[in-house]
Amino acid sequence: MDGAGLEQHIRFLIETDKLKSVLRRTRPIGLERQENSAEHSWQIVLMAILFADFASAPIDLLRVVKMLTIHDVVEVDVGDTFHYAKEADPTLAARELAAARRLFGLLPGSLGTELLALWEEFEAGETADSRYARAVDRLVAFFMNQGNGFGTWSEHSIPPDLVLEKNAHIALGSSALWKVAQGLVEEYRRSLDFRTPSPSAGGRGGRG
Amino acid sequence: MDGAGLEQHIRFLIETDKLKSVLRRTRPIGLERQENSAEHSWQIVLMAILFADFASAPIDLLRVVKMLTIHDVVEVDVGDTFHYAKEADPTLAARELAAARRLFGLLPGSLGTELLALWEEFEAGETADSRYARAVDRLVAFFMNQGNGFGTWSEHSIPPDLVLEKNAHIALGSSALWKVAQGLVEEYRRSLDFRTPSPSAGGRGGRG
Repeated sequence: MDGAGLEQHIRFLIETDKLKSVLRRTRPIGLERQENSAEHSWQIVLMAILFADFASAPIDLLRVVKMLTIHDVVEVDVGDTFHYAKEADPTLAARELAAARRLFGLLPGSLGTELLALWEEFEAGETADSRYARAVDRLVAFFMNQGNGFGTWSEHSIPPDLVLEKNAHIALGSSALWKVAQGLVEEYRRSLDFRTPSPSAGGRGGRG
Repeated sequence: MDGAGLEQHIRFLIETDKLKSVLRRTRPIGLERQENSAEHSWQIVLMAILFADFASAPIDLLRVVKMLTIHDVVEVDVGDTFHYAKEADPTLAARELAAARRLFGLLPGSLGTELLALWEEFEAGETADSRYARAVDRLVAFFMNQGNGFGTWSEHSIPPDLVLEKNAHIALGSSALWKVAQGLVEEYRRSLDFRTPSPSAGGRGGRG
């Protein structure tokens, strides 16, 4: 490998350092500040390692870890979008794809191609590796929310049943983690001061 | 696996969330704030993936990534220690080992044992995997420093030759990355307003 190849890697590294400035809605447990997408990415890599035995299908953990390490770098160009607002932004997918092509295009051919393909696989969520990766990526917000009195959800008035609906794909990656997620949503439901509007939630968690 | 096993994993995850509050001396490129050990850990996992072909010996990238993901969690108990101040703290190694035993001891037996062994392997730096992991962990500060006008080094009056001396083990993990590191130190040397005291640096980078 020549110096030019290494310079491309370094340029990508410097460019993606900006992920440390991309803020998410979630806060680290017990902190007032929002967390950034770089520290979030570390935490989901850690989760993928910790929970690997709980994947619903056999996975290649190295591929999963690579996906999770690079899945958010597009936010350098497009910022973070709140999970519950994604459907309201019809151009988001196209802008993220353009960002992925720009960023992974900074890398030498084969490496850039590999990481772009992993990013696309994660987005599609149709393989065992990407389903497990997506399960972990979604579940972490449940723990951060629980640790902060379910602040992000209640501040944005997200009903418990919408949390379940918008995260049901966790079950595809890990039925064990989906059980954990469901338990946390029931805890959230009980913490609320109002009865959720969904008929299916009738009688649970309400006071009156 | 039963529910008790999963609860242990979750407890470890919640406990290590505190890594987002452990501050390092280094700042992200272009930012005034110090970076935390969680976002640093993400970045070195990314580097390990990007530079895997540049390791000096064959490596198991998944083992490397695991090491880098968990190598800093002991800082939850002992905080971050500036690389150039480590020798001045004779009890540091023992305190870090106690922290590692406490934290990895939160996990179920086999997983906790695996991660503690990887942490110890990283600290010892005697295998191909740990040497490459340590090379990446040290090199990232060079890029952050370069992007910030070599601020961390110059603020703490670290002479260029001490930077080389204290990071020479990068060469054990990757001769290609060591060449990059040496180039950055020479850039730092040229940026300084004084001639370094080391005789070996005579005539390079000085002005008078």
